[in-house]
This record gives sequence, C-alpha cells and structure tokens, in this order.
Amino acid sequence: MNFSSDTAAPAHPAILAAIAQANGGAAPSYGADLWMTLATERLKETFETDLDMWLVSSGTAANALGLSVLCPPTGAILCHQEAHIELDERGAPEFFSGGAKLRLLPGNHGKIDALALQARLAANRFDFVHETPAQVVSISNLTECGVAYTAEETAELASRAHAAGLAVHLDGARFANAAASLKASPADLSWKAGIDVMSFGATKNGAMGCEAILLFGRARGQIEELRVRAKRAGHMPPKMRFLGAQMAAYLAGDLWLDLAGRANRAATGLAGVLTGPAAGRLAHPVDGNEVFVELSNEAAGRLTQAGATFYRWIDGSHRFVCSWTTTDAEIAAAAAVFAGVGARHDA
Amino acid sequence: MNFSSDTAAPAHPAILAAIAQANGGAAPSYGADLWMTLATERLKETFETDLDMWLVSSGTAANALGLSVLCPPTGAILCHQEAHIELDERGAPEFFSGGAKLRLLPGNHGKIDALALQARLAANRFDFVHETPAQVVSISNLTECGVAYTAEETAELASRAHAAGLAVHLDGARFANAAASLKASPADLSWKAGIDVMSFGATKNGAMGCEAILLFGRARGQIEELRVRAKRAGHMPPKMRFLGAQMAAYLAGDLWLDLAGRANRAATGLAGVLTGPAAGRLAHPVDGNEVFVELSNEAAGRLTQAGATFYRWIDGSHRFVCSWTTTDAEIAAAAAVFAGVGARHDA
Amino acid sequence: MNFSSDTAAPAHPAILAAIAQANGGAAPSYGADLWMTLATERLKETFETDLDMWLVSSGTAANALGLSVLCPPTGAILCHQEAHIELDERGAPEFFSGGAKLRLLPGNHGKIDALALQARLAANRFDFVHETPAQVVSISNLTECGVAYTAEETAELASRAHAAGLAVHLDGARFANAAASLKASPADLSWKAGIDVMSFGATKNGAMGCEAILLFGRARGQIEELRVRAKRAGHMPPKMRFLGAQMAAYLAGDLWLDLAGRANRAATGLAGVLTGPAAGRLAHPVDGNEVFVELSNEAAGRLTQAGATFYRWIDGSHRFVCSWTTTDAEIAAAAAVFAGVGARHDA
Amino acid sequence: MNFSSDTAAPAHPAILAAIAQANGGAAPSYGADLWMTLATERLKETFETDLDMWLVSSGTAANALGLSVLCPPTGAILCHQEAHIELDERGAPEFFSGGAKLRLLPGNHGKIDALALQARLAANRFDFVHETPAQVVSISNLTECGVAYTAEETAELASRAHAAGLAVHLDGARFANAAASLKASPADLSWKAGIDVMSFGATKNGAMGCEAILLFGRARGQIEELRVRAKRAGHMPPKMRFLGAQMAAYLAGDLWLDLAGRANRAATGLAGVLTGPAAGRLAHPVDGNEVFVELSNEAAGRLTQAGATFYRWIDGSHRFVCSWTTTDAEIAAAAAVFAGVGARHDA
Repeated sequence: MNFSSDTAAPAHPAILAAIAQANGGAAPSYGADLWMTLATERLKETFETDLDMWLVSSGTAANALGLSVLCPPTGAILCHQEAHIELDERGAPEFFSGGAKLRLLPGNHGKIDALALQARLAANRFDFVHETPAQVVSISNLTECGVAYTAEETAELASRAHAAGLAVHLDGARFANAAASLKASPADLSWKAGIDVMSFGATKNGAMGCEAILLFGRARGQIEELRVRAKRAGHMPPKMRFLGAQMAAYLAGDLWLDLAGRANRAATGLAGVLTGPAAGRLAHPVDGNEVFVELSNEAAGRLTQAGATFYRWIDGSHRFVCSWTTTDAEIAAAAAVFAGVGARHDA
Repeated sequence: MNFSSDTAAPAHPAILAAIAQANGGAAPSYGADLWMTLATERLKETFETDLDMWLVSSGTAANALGLSVLCPPTGAILCHQEAHIELDERGAPEFFSGGAKLRLLPGNHGKIDALALQARLAANRFDFVHETPAQVVSISNLTECGVAYTAEETAELASRAHAAGLAVHLDGARFANAAASLKASPADLSWKAGIDVMSFGATKNGAMGCEAILLFGRARGQIEELRVRAKRAGHMPPKMRFLGAQMAAYLAGDLWLDLAGRANRAATGLAGVLTGPAAGRLAHPVDGNEVFVELSNEAAGRLTQAGATFYRWIDGSHRFVCSWTTTDAEIAAAAAVFAGVGARHDA
Repeated sequence: MNFSSDTAAPAHPAILAAIAQANGGAAPSYGADLWMTLATERLKETFETDLDMWLVSSGTAANALGLSVLCPPTGAILCHQEAHIELDERGAPEFFSGGAKLRLLPGNHGKIDALALQARLAANRFDFVHETPAQVVSISNLTECGVAYTAEETAELASRAHAAGLAVHLDGARFANAAASLKASPADLSWKAGIDVMSFGATKNGAMGCEAILLFGRARGQIEELRVRAKRAGHMPPKMRFLGAQMAAYLAGDLWLDLAGRANRAATGLAGVLTGPAAGRLAHPVDGNEVFVELSNEAAGRLTQAGATFYRWIDGSHRFVCSWTTTDAEIAAAAAVFAGVGARHDA
Repeated sequence: MNFSSDTAAPAHPAILAAIAQANGGAAPSYGADLWMTLATERLKETFETDLDMWLVSSGTAANALGLSVLCPPTGAILCHQEAHIELDERGAPEFFSGGAKLRLLPGNHGKIDALALQARLAANRFDFVHETPAQVVSISNLTECGVAYTAEETAELASRAHAAGLAVHLDGARFANAAASLKASPADLSWKAGIDVMSFGATKNGAMGCEAILLFGRARGQIEELRVRAKRAGHMPPKMRFLGAQMAAYLAGDLWLDLAGRANRAATGLAGVLTGPAAGRLAHPVDGNEVFVELSNEAAGRLTQAGATFYRWIDGSHRFVCSWTTTDAEIAAAAAVFAGVGARHDA
C-alpha cells in the first residue's frame, strides 16, 4: 500500500525496452540523434500541431526552464498560492529567470480563481517602473490538489491573460492524468486553450526520468533561447538519445494514456474506500490519480498500522497517490482496514 | 571509425542491467533509495576515504554545482584558458555561482603552468574590495588536450592554492582514463593530492548519463548546500535510483578502469597509426583516450573519405577520441588508410 | 499643498552646508574619508552602541543590500504583503540576493500580524530541501500605512524570529518619524528590540540622497560582505565624503528628530482637517508624517481643485504625506477647502 | 602633490551652486524633474544628436547598467585585458547582466588590438550552443593607461564589431580628457564612430558624483529596460534632480572641457618633470590627465619623501593622476624634487 507518491513507482517495461533499443552503437550527442527526432514527431502527432521541444530529467527543470523563456528577470509570474513552482521547487523559477517574482493567487482545489486573476490583471502596469509587472500566468493541470482544469476553464484563464499581454504556462507534471480523466485531447487542453509553453510530464507516469518542455505557436521563437538556457543549466546531457527514447516510447500506442488511466481508476477505487462510513471525507474532487481525504487520527492510524504510506497535506487533509503500478490488491487491502469498523461518530 | 567523441558511445550492458535491476517496485524518491546508498559506499571504497556525493546527469551540471559551493558570486575561479568550464559550458559556472568570474591561466597541453599560477596567487588580495579575488583553482584531469596530471603535479598546484587560501576543484570528466593511464589510485589523484571537490565522470566511459560530484575532507561540510543547489537547478530528479544504479555498476569490479583501459589502449594504437610516415605528428602526448594530431589536409581528407569522423581542435590539430567501444577493426581501418601511402614530403 | 510625497521635498540647508564644507580640497576615495568616520561616530552615539555601517543614495539600495547579507539565494524573506520591498522596489531584493523569495504575511496597518508570523515560523523547515525556508523577517517602521511599531511590538516579532533561527531586518526609510512620534530612543526601537540590520533613512527627511545600512551585534560580521556587495552593485561611488557629510549633518544636534517632528506635527494638523465633518475618515492611525483618509470623490475633488497633490493608495484610501517643509499655510489651505461645507450626508 | 587619483578631487563650485539652485522647493521624484530634462537637452546639444540617458552616481553603475542592456546573461563582452570593467568593478558587469562573461583581448596602452579583435570575431559563433558568444565590444577612452582612441580608431573597432553583429560600448569615465586632448567633437568620438551605449563620466572631472549612461541610435530602444534595471539596482534615487543639476552644470558653457583641459595641461607639465634626466621614462603616451612613468626606486622614493602621492600600476610603472584642481605649484614642487639631482646612471 504505497500511496506516498507516483514518483516512487518504477519505470514501465516499455520505457526500459526503448532505452535498451536506443543503446545500439554510436549516436550523435546533445540532441542531434534519431530518438530525439522520433520523440518530436510523436509529440507533434499527440498534440496535433507543429511544436518545438526539449527534454529534461526533472519536473523542476522543465518548469523553470520553460518559465525562463517567458518571463524576464524584472517580471513576475502569477500562479496559485499552492503551486508546485511556489512551494516545492526551492526557488528554481527565481534561479532560472534571474530573479523574477512569483505572485500568488487564491482559488479552490488548486485552481486559480478567475476573478482574482482578473483583478490582478486589471491592476497590472507594464510601464510603472517601481513595481514588478506580471508577464506570465502559470497553471497546473492536474492541480496540486489533484483536480483537473477543463479545456474551457483553461481557455478562460488563458484568454484573460493573453488579453492583458501575458503569456501562459502550464505545469503538466500530471497532464496525462488530466487528459485521461477528462477524455479531452491534448491539443484541446493545451495550445487550443491558449497554452504557450508547457511541461509535459512522463516521470510520474511510467518514465525513468523524462519531462518535455513544449513550445507552441509564437513561443516557438524561443526554442534557441531554451536550448541555450538548458545547456547553461546542465540540462543538455551528451546522450540525449536516452531521453528521446523514453518520450518516444511513452507516446507510442498511447501508452501514456493507458498508464494514466490505470492510475486514475485506482484512485477512484481508493477514494471509494477512503470515503466509506468508517473512513473520511474528500477534501478535493478526484479528477486524476490523487485522493485527498480528511481522516480522523484514528482512521489514519489504522491505515498506517496496516502498512499504508501517505502524506499529510498542507491543508490538513491526507494525500494518497496512485500510480500505474497500483494494484487491485492494494485497494482491497485499504478496504480491509475499514471493513467491520463502525461508522464514524460524527458521520 | 567514429572518433568524434566518447559521448557518442552507447552505455555498457552492465549499466543497463543495473538500471533494469533497480526498476523492481517502489523506491523512495529524491535520493533516499538503496542504490544511492550503494553508490556512495562504492565511491568510498574506490576513493579509500569517507566522502559525500551527489549524482547528476551531465558534466556541465557536475562542474557548475561543485564550483558553486566553493566560490561565492563575488569571487573568481582560476582555470586553464582552454578549460571545459571556460569554453564549453555556456557560462554554467557563472550561472550556478551567481556571477563569479573565471580567470584564465596558460600552460602546455591544457595543464595550468605552475609558475603562472604562483604569480597569480601572489597578486591575489582577498581584502581589496574593487577587484575580484580568486577563491578556487579548477584543474581538469585528463586535460582538454588529453593529457594527465600525475598525483605529484596535482599536489603541487593544490598545495600552492591551499597555501594561498583557495580551494581546489577537479573536473574529472575523463578521470577514469587518467587513473587507468597513470596506474595511480583514485585517492592519490584526488583528495590525497589536495582536491576538495571533484566531478567524477562516468558518461563518457560507459554510463548512460551519470556524473558524481564528490566532496572530500572539509568540503564535506557543503553537502547540504550542494543538495539544495542541485534541487534548485532541477538536478534532483525524483527517481534518483537510476543514477545511483549507474554509478554503483560503474564501480563494481572496477568496470570503470576496465573500460577506460580499453579506450586508452585503442588511443595508443590509433596514435601509432596517425603518427606513421604518411600521417601526422602528435600535438599533445597521449595519456588517455584522446589523440591530437597535426595532419596535413591531404591526410585528414583521406581519413574523412574512408569514413572516419573526428574534429578540428582550436589549436589547429585534429582530435580523435576513442571509447570503450572502439574496436581493433576501427584502428586497422585507420591504418589501412595510410598503408602504401608514401611518407610525407616534409617528414 | 504638495502632499504627494516627502521625497518631493528639497534638502535641508544644513545638509547642503555640510556638503559644501566637505568640498574643501582632496580627500581619500571610496569611504576612507573623515566625513564617513564622523558619520559612523554620530550613528554610534545616536544608536548608543557600536555598529558598522555603509551609506547609499537610495532606500531601495539600502534595503536590498542589507537583506542580501542576511538571506542566501536559496532562502526566503518574510515581510508584510504591502511592504515596500515587495511592492515598490522592482524586485531589488531578488536581484541583490541572487534569487531569494519574498513570502508575504498579513496584518493591520502594514504591521505583520504576530500570530501569522508565528504560524509561518512553526512551519518553517531549514532541512527540507524542496521548499525555500525563511531566513529573515523584514519589518518597516513606519509601515507603508504610516503606522509605528513600538519597541515592544518590534521586540515581540524579533524575538519570535530569533527563536526560530531567523535574522531581523528593519526598513527604516521613515524611522525618524517613528522615533519622533513614539518619543522612543533609536536604540530601543532597533538593536535593543532585536533588529540585526536596518535601513536608516535620511532622504525623505531632509537629506539630498542618503540612507544608512546599519549592522548591529552579530550582524557586524557581515560588514566586509556588505562593502563588497555595495561595490559590485555600483554603490561605492568614489566621493563617499558627500554621503558621509550628509549623514553627519543629519544627526548633528538631533536635526533628524527636529525635522521629523515638524513633519509629524504637520500630519497631525492635516489629519484634523481631513477628518472634519465635510471630509473623511482615517484609514490608518497617524503615527508619523502620513495621513491615509477615506475621502468621498467629492471631497477629493475639492482638494484637487484647490491645488492639493496626493495619491490614491492601494487600499482605496488617499495618502497625504507631510515633510519637514510642510507649512502651516498649507494645512490652513486644506482646511479652507472644507470651511463652510456642510457635513457629509453619511456622517 | 596629490597625484593619487582624480577621484580625490573635490567638486567644482559651479556643480555645488547648481545643486543649491536645484534645492528650491518641491520637485517631482524619480527623474521627472526639470533638471533631468535640462541635463538631457544639454547632452543632446553636446553630442549633437537625439539620445536617451540615465544618470547614476558611480562609474561602476554606469558601465554595468549600460552593458546589461546590450548583453544577455548567456553572452560575452569583449574588452581589453586591463579594462576597468574586468579589473576594478568587483564583477559588476557579471552581476548586472545576470552572469555574462568577459572575454579579454590584448593591445598596447590599454587599447584593444584590432587584429586580435578581428580574430576573435571571426571565431565567434552565435549558433553554437556550447560556447558563450560575444555580443558586445567594450572599449575605454581614455584607456586605463591614459591613452586616447581617436575617432578613426574607435570607428575601426566599432565597424568590425557591428559587421560581426555585436554592439559597441564605451567606458567614458575620462571621456572629457580624451575629447579635450584630441580636440575632437563628442559626436565624432562616440555615435558617429559607432558607439551604441556609453558611460559619460563627470565625477572624476569636477562633479560630486554623476555619470551619464547615453543610448544612441538603435540602442535608444533600450531606455525603458535601462530605467527598470536602474530602479531594480537602487540607482533611481528619489531626488534625481540633484544628479540632473550636476550634469546640466557640467555641460553648461563647456565647463567639462575647460576642467579636462586644465587637468590635461597639468599632466603634460608633470610628464615633462617626470621624464627629466633624473626621473624616469614614460610607460605610455600622455593623452589626457594621467602620467605613467617608469621610475627608479630612488626617484620614486624622493617623490614620496617630498609628499607626493601616487600609485604603482600593474605594469610596474607609477601612475600620477592630475585633476582640474592640480596646481602649477604642485608641478613645480615635483620639479623641485629632481632639481640639482644628477642624471640617472642608466640614462
């Protein structure tokens, strides 16, 4: 019952097989290899558009590099107050941008509140030298609370941002889970909704360590700047073929949607267990592979004693993360914890 | 006849096998896994000392992160004027350090000239507010010209640096080739010679993408700072176990020395071919897996026509790099290019 | 009726006289002159303690440099959500620190709420690599709302911060107004209350352009780092004597308290006028030289028509700032605007 | 006999008078005042062109800010190996640019050697991701050795730089001395010769502390970026009128050329004294207000004993700097040191 994080899961065999296959003989270094080309082609097919991309080995690198080509050192990035880029990346956006600010917005379930965004944009002044103007809005899909933005919700925020002269960034570390859950096309959830640059994660969903930074539309003009910044940050390892191979395999035959679907279904099952009469209440809707539940200490203790691993979240709830490796047996084991336990007194 | 770079070579099967083995089930994220522990233990054994370490996926990251814990933004790093950190890392040391300067020193074959270093150190003033004082000396072993520093040579530079209050960094992207060539112990070539922090490369010598940053002695006090900076730079990917597995396998049974020995022997053989009567003259001694030869345009053209790949170096010579995959057949093919060709007219 | 800002006021004649006096003949450059020594001595007397200091020409430089010796690039600064360092310095703290974060706290009248601070400190983890730990608390006295922290209030926040391992910074751009208003000693309001580093402003209160960065107690160990950073930021102009002369004259005979007292009295008088029956209500207490009033559009329009200059504040109120040059005639002119006007209907 | 530096000199009375005059009553802050407008107008007249400008209080700030709008963090600045920006500004260009590199060029008397520049430009590759491409050439006029570039020499370097796609920066801390010495127009020595951005110094030549950053031609498009960066670096003090007043007075009636002429004539006189039979030999031509002489220890000792102050330069010679305050009596006193002393034995 390892619900600690989807990053604890191993890589999918198809990813390892692709790496082994890419290992045959010499190949050009620094991204000029065929696996990088193949990965690019598959990303174009998957997102149904022309695009430019670079691959990195961590989500922090993907977000910070992507943001660094959208926001100057003298600008600000608007994001949710619980965004990963604000709370979990040790100042990487500030580092890569050369000192840009993150300005925080509220909103339920990790989604930026549209009215709060509008108010902030209305007060944004590019020509006022004393204050740091916002240059980018960054959203996360799934959010940090495991909730999905629909294509329409994304488009609403993005169109407001664009109208105010800002670019739009998407942290898609769990984009696969959002797409699988919404049954929406990657295109609809990204560039068609106004996303300029996105992190497209694979690591949490079956890769060994691979995240794509995707540039759409006008943002494609930043690809050389992105490559230069990647190099300068040590994110242009010589044997890029092993990153290319991972991404190519991840997309082949929609493996990524298959794996995300498995994790999502596991989460739905687990949510049923954890909201049973003896367990708790959902703190956030379950739109992907994460379940946030308000648990009594007793209920949490029972789960821990039975060997389940999970974390306390900053809102006081408990976070359970499923992955493509979560088994029916694990869900059943969680259910067994509460079987025969009387309903909560406060229910 | 791919002599373009050792980075073009694939990973050794033992590295891929270790990755596959590390892929069994869930594992703690961000470096708390058993493969990282195993890698640390093997590094301690190999270097015959206690040490702290972190693993990254590129040499640029290894050098820049290592230097960033030795040099403040207001200080300078002394290095050879052809050092990789100066010429090939797109300003990564400046980026990671927050704006430190690199100050350049001359020297034959990529080695820092000891007298030039001494003169610079004698003029170094930590308490003069206007000028940027040197805080670190960084050497490369192998140098960029494929030449090895002996333990004594390293110790001479390091003792001068220490006496002047500077720390000593080693770019060991091809440390394996140096150690194999010199038949010197890793300890003698590093901490016993006064190295405080080093990059210990594996990628060019059989790994998929793995470089260790090693902290010795007093520099171990910087390990938390190093981890924080790694995180902030996107160099703490969640599934660190795959980096740990690579390094552990690289060291097991002295695989690293075996692979470096192969590459070195191939280079020695190739050097014989390339300095034959119809070929050229060595520009630098061959102490590792690289051969720098002054070739006539005719000789270079012959090789290219026969399918050999190699690069022109900044000193006008031609660089040929062997790797653990270089075959006797490749050396023989190079020899065949010159077989039956008359001696150079100027020989 | 120029109530736009105290920065619009000219320099006091005594400041200009000191500059003229410092202009006699050659003097050592870069801070080694006698006026800098004199300024230091007078600061020690004024603050009743040994201290180290540097002088700069802007409040932004004073704050950002002071903070940069307290907060590493990988740390965070806690400040009020309306602090000058957050809203009015174009990311200077981020620039000077090399990318530190500002984390915002609520509180009435620009004062940090002690409970909010405590909650944040309780959650602060120096050893958690993913999140940016707070390293400094920065308060402003006067606050951005013109309100003074008492020595006790300062000490309460500072002791909490110190107990949690953080340093304490004070933005004292209008420290003179706070000291004059509270009739408290500079020592009690600063180092005795736990301030480690402070900006001590003179520009808004009669100087031409001069702000001191003061280091107290243990923070004095950072004086060389401060000087190096000042140099690197262009804040070590050769003729420092003209900054030293300003600060020395500012403190001589308690000129600074005299000037601040004048500005404060003017503000008290103006507050009486602006809260009269036909005018408005105070948005914040008047503890110094600033008056924040909620005015009807009609009342504000009347003032504007009569030639008064003032600004709308971000909380919707109107800010009126008095300086040492504000005259009784200006207050009377403001009063005349409302003379004979009936009381507000909503009063 | 204070020949230590022109920065040791006081401000000219006309500068102080202008400051006093600017002190009458309220004025808009942050550069919106009339003295800034006046300074801009006079700069346009002096340089016979439209231009944009900002004023700062130190040469380091002027150079680093000016360079920061020409060179991205991922680029390099070409300068002379003894340039002030390389040796005397504590890494300010690196700090303000966010980590750009300085790449050094040789040349006699502090002038960049045109062939060395050409060779470097020929090897410059904007599209090679691994190496940092040069984006700017920065020259100093006067050079650090007190030598002037003619308009033609400036134009030759600038046209090479422009042809290679680089911008051209001029450190004109002693531009007045160069212009006075060459009897060349400011226009001919700057934008007509291809300078894009320059520091135009006043501090060493009679101002209290004032340096202009001038943007010419296409570089004028960077003025908002320059202002933003000035603000963020604390170089937008509220009472900008006092900087504006200094620059306006400095240019009025060609005061600047008058003062520079005085200093230059003093230097010429001093050079005569210091190259007399008992003294030394010039290390560099005297094109402005600085005299570099190779002195025997005996000769240097004599001068020191007589109360002369001067510094040893990095090339082993001794630097004597005259200013607008250097008197005939000081030159005569220097002459008296050597009067009656026999010629050097080695003469």
